Amino acid sequence: MLSELTWEAVGAAKREELLSSIPSEWRIPAEIFPPESQNDVTSFPEKSGWFTPAELEITNSTASQILAKTTTGAWSAESVTRAFCKRAAAAHQLTNCLSETLFPEALESAKALDAHFAKTKKPIGPFHGLPISLKDNFNIIGKDSTLGFTGWVNDPATYNSTLVDLLRAAGAVLYVKTNVPTAMMIAETVNNVFGRTVNPRNRLLTSGGSSGGESALIVFGGSVLGVGTDIGGSLRIPAACTGIFTLRPSFGRFPNFLTKSGLAGQESVLSVNGPMAATLESIKLFSSTVTNSAPWLLDPKCIPIPWRTVERKQKLKLAVLWDDGMVRPTPPVRRAQKETVEKLRKAGHEVVDWEPTGHKEGVDILDRFFLSDGGRTVQEILAAAKEPIRPEMDRYGHAKDRGVQALWQLHVERNKFQQDYMARWNACEGLDGLLTPTTPFATVEHTRFKHVGYTGVYNILDYSCLSFPCGVHVDAAVDVPVAPDAETELSKVDGEVQREYNPTAVHGQPVSLQLVGRRLEEEKVVMMAEVILEALGASGDGVAAASEEPKANGSGSPKRRSRTWPRESAEHRCAVV
Amino acid sequence: MLSELTWEAVGAAKREELLSSIPSEWRIPAEIFPPESQNDVTSFPEKSGWFTPAELEITNSTASQILAKTTTGAWSAESVTRAFCKRAAAAHQLTNCLSETLFPEALESAKALDAHFAKTKKPIGPFHGLPISLKDNFNIIGKDSTLGFTGWVNDPATYNSTLVDLLRAAGAVLYVKTNVPTAMMIAETVNNVFGRTVNPRNRLLTSGGSSGGESALIVFGGSVLGVGTDIGGSLRIPAACTGIFTLRPSFGRFPNFLTKSGLAGQESVLSVNGPMAATLESIKLFSSTVTNSAPWLLDPKCIPIPWRTVERKQKLKLAVLWDDGMVRPTPPVRRAQKETVEKLRKAGHEVVDWEPTGHKEGVDILDRFFLSDGGRTVQEILAAAKEPIRPEMDRYGHAKDRGVQALWQLHVERNKFQQDYMARWNACEGLDGLLTPTTPFATVEHTRFKHVGYTGVYNILDYSCLSFPCGVHVDAAVDVPVAPDAETELSKVDGEVQREYNPTAVHGQPVSLQLVGRRLEEEKVVMMAEVILEALGASGDGVAAASEEPKANGSGSPKRRSRTWPRESAEHRCAVV
Repeated sequence: MLSELTWEAVGAAKREELLSSIPSEWRIPAEIFPPESQNDVTSFPEKSGWFTPAELEITNSTASQILAKTTTGAWSAESVTRAFCKRAAAAHQLTNCLSETLFPEALESAKALDAHFAKTKKPIGPFHGLPISLKDNFNIIGKDSTLGFTGWVNDPATYNSTLVDLLRAAGAVLYVKTNVPTAMMIAETVNNVFGRTVNPRNRLLTSGGSSGGESALIVFGGSVLGVGTDIGGSLRIPAACTGIFTLRPSFGRFPNFLTKSGLAGQESVLSVNGPMAATLESIKLFSSTVTNSAPWLLDPKCIPIPWRTVERKQKLKLAVLWDDGMVRPTPPVRRAQKETVEKLRKAGHEVVDWEPTGHKEGVDILDRFFLSDGGRTVQEILAAAKEPIRPEMDRYGHAKDRGVQALWQLHVERNKFQQDYMARWNACEGLDGLLTPTTPFATVEHTRFKHVGYTGVYNILDYSCLSFPCGVHVDAAVDVPVAPDAETELSKVDGEVQREYNPTAVHGQPVSLQLVGRRLEEEKVVMMAEVILEALGASGDGVAAASEEPKANGSGSPKRRSRTWPRESAEHRCAVV
Repeated sequence: MLSELTWEAVGAAKREELLSSIPSEWRIPAEIFPPESQNDVTSFPEKSGWFTPAELEITNSTASQILAKTTTGAWSAESVTRAFCKRAAAAHQLTNCLSETLFPEALESAKALDAHFAKTKKPIGPFHGLPISLKDNFNIIGKDSTLGFTGWVNDPATYNSTLVDLLRAAGAVLYVKTNVPTAMMIAETVNNVFGRTVNPRNRLLTSGGSSGGESALIVFGGSVLGVGTDIGGSLRIPAACTGIFTLRPSFGRFPNFLTKSGLAGQESVLSVNGPMAATLESIKLFSSTVTNSAPWLLDPKCIPIPWRTVERKQKLKLAVLWDDGMVRPTPPVRRAQKETVEKLRKAGHEVVDWEPTGHKEGVDILDRFFLSDGGRTVQEILAAAKEPIRPEMDRYGHAKDRGVQALWQLHVERNKFQQDYMARWNACEGLDGLLTPTTPFATVEHTRFKHVGYTGVYNILDYSCLSFPCGVHVDAAVDVPVAPDAETELSKVDGEVQREYNPTAVHGQPVSLQLVGRRLEEEKVVMMAEVILEALGASGDGVAAASEEPKANGSGSPKRRSRTWPRESAEHRCAVV
């Protein structure tokens, strides 16, 4: 049937089906439905009066607060699940963040968990009764994983992703899957099936991509713990665009087997999954629970390293990447870097500079890996549905397959890059981690996201990365654009990014930074993030941090910044090798 | 200069140069030079009278015995190095096992170690004064790594392999590099530069490949600990062909960065390095020392897992792969399997059957990975020197590059294979390891080695494997060929292997088996090997085990085996999933 429909019709039908899957009790009544003109919808749950106090208490809790109740019988899994289903349904109606709902299945499994608890007085596992949201590319039997391709609509998964089985065995309740951009290869969340996901903090802005359905859902409070994936920044960019936390682990730490890919079999740079949440504590909870459940016995790619205890380090040595030599951060991110470094130094940490040596090559290698099949995989999926290629994916439409030998040679190049970067790290004696922008933006207006270089380079390196809101929010009065002739463009894209920067548009948005550890140092990165948040006077709670945002919408019209972006003095430079 | 020479002349000059690098004091005097007709040359060191008692004592010691002396100053590093240089030189003159010598450099560094010890009374590291031999593909600055290509003669390395730096920092003395087949892609050791390496136990037989220079050197006593590499069986096949021990670790356990490859950048199946030695104890010594030296800070591909303590398991559950569905083992290997299983059961271990499900697909995938660039990489190296392709490498001459998308799809196939194999392992409750043939042969006459399936399948799976001499030796009187019509051929190659099996030719040769653990279970595999050797009444000393070989050269003409090769009964079968 559907195969006879146009791709537009297939998309429309899928969208309608998704909306229809929300029961009427969870449809926002017309009389309280926020107008399209309302940009910030994050206050809806608290202010609409549509949620009961119990629903708000549940959905405003952290993951560990919920588990403290569900694993002791204080809250039923069903009541928790219902509350999150309702809030997720609201999130979708206001931000278009979902791709699939599993409401009946979720309630069913919640009831089964409650029955188990009633009978045994024991939780079924460490995630007993915790709703966890998943990005669209996690396969769940019977549900589509379209990745935004109309050709993959009505092609439900016949097997579960390994993580799905693991989470369910641990007692988690899976209740929604979240929207992604086409093939998950765009840094905003938009595709021809579900359309565009918007940022609940300001619907004129992007929630990032590719895990941007997750980030929107979480920042709205429709999920307390979600799982996204990252092959070039797809966890970190949406986390940064919405001011939440995420951990991009090195490959093999969390089970990512049997997830769906838009570039199936591309393994030169490997996709990983990781948690996204409003609190660092939830990130740690997910990470320790998953690695301690021996995922290597289920996923042939997983490494047998359980969650390790690392000693808290009182004095960190961090190196700051002020810019990556390709695109400078926009002014609010620059200010966030500067203020963060000041606070870190004040708290006694050592902060040195980090040069962007090799970053351009790293990003270029990443790009060539993605396009190494000449775009054929994507082209074939589109062709089967006669779906046109989206403009953001343009290059996938006319790339060139240079053959396997060229790919092999690119591996050699990548390995050299990894070697050089490691040598540079080793030469910076005692270096604990890098502090970099996550993206050039706090967040940005739809269609204007550019440059995944700050994240992508660490996919090529496979380092452990954590994106965190640093407590700084864009202040249009302070974070004025750089004067056109104040600094030389690093690249064409740099020029565009600086010119397009609109402080008024992003006023009030939280700014995130990226903390980078060595490969497979996830525990250390989490520990360092705790230490850093303490130094910043932040709570590790992204939502709380967001409350510090400037209340007024800027103080008058933005001024042009006249000073040249200050780089640190030579004395702070780390040895360059 | 050399570039104007024919490839034959380049090879001849390189061979001559190699021979010339052996100082006259280490040239075997003509009067005691074993005649070409002498097959077994392993007794030469003991019986020729050419080695001093001190030299014999040193070179007959195990690695830990040597270290006990060199790290306490009882033996000088120089005396130990001299003894091994001399014995290695003899090994080369009798078996053609070396590719490079580093005699002056080795003596120089030994003297430096002695000076360090004299000054500090402390060893420089855990390998202080231990000579370690390396396969040709380990790069050492100033030395060729030809991998048997005439085009790579006189192209000395400009950097060290990571392992080279690590071993030297630990105090090891590097003194020789050992021969390999062209591109390391043949299971015997033969190439157009150095020619053929032969088996010291019987020079009419192969020492295996591709680490067959190492195996020949070690079994002759010219090295107490060598390092080879393995991408399809290249550690295990030569270890088995000579009756020594080796551990093929999972990728990332030992640093293999900056080694030279004949298929540079081919990463769909990853090459690993591992120790080769006459004793299991030496294997453990290398493995623990290397992993405990934090190689992940030097090699970006290494996984941060130090050597872990595993509890000794008194009762193992092992599954036996009697054959892989493609090529049955030759009769002595069958007997070794049977006798080993009997002894293991007698010792209280549980032994079940293991079906070769998927093995054919696994080997086929491996093969397609190797040829995925259409053989271009190899062709270009050969073309630059106008060197013809060797017959064993024939397929590399006319393979087809099917493009990157096809390679991506092959990755998907490989992952499914890994998933299914893991599921089968998980379904066999309590399974500790697999016991399989390492090759269909004890060893075999030159040019007759066929079928790397028993090892290669575990490269695709990246499981931890250990090849060990099981104490059985070919007895021509007992290990008679299978009667032509006694069993149906599993394949064309199976027919050839069984028909070509010549008990007289391999009489007395040790038989090895392969022990397979899960991925990254190196410690457990070593522990299991210890338990198994105990059950077999073997010492873990390959040389000692070899002394149990039948003394007479068979008892009359071999008889044809009439019984069908017995498979275990259904009750021992492991659940098939």
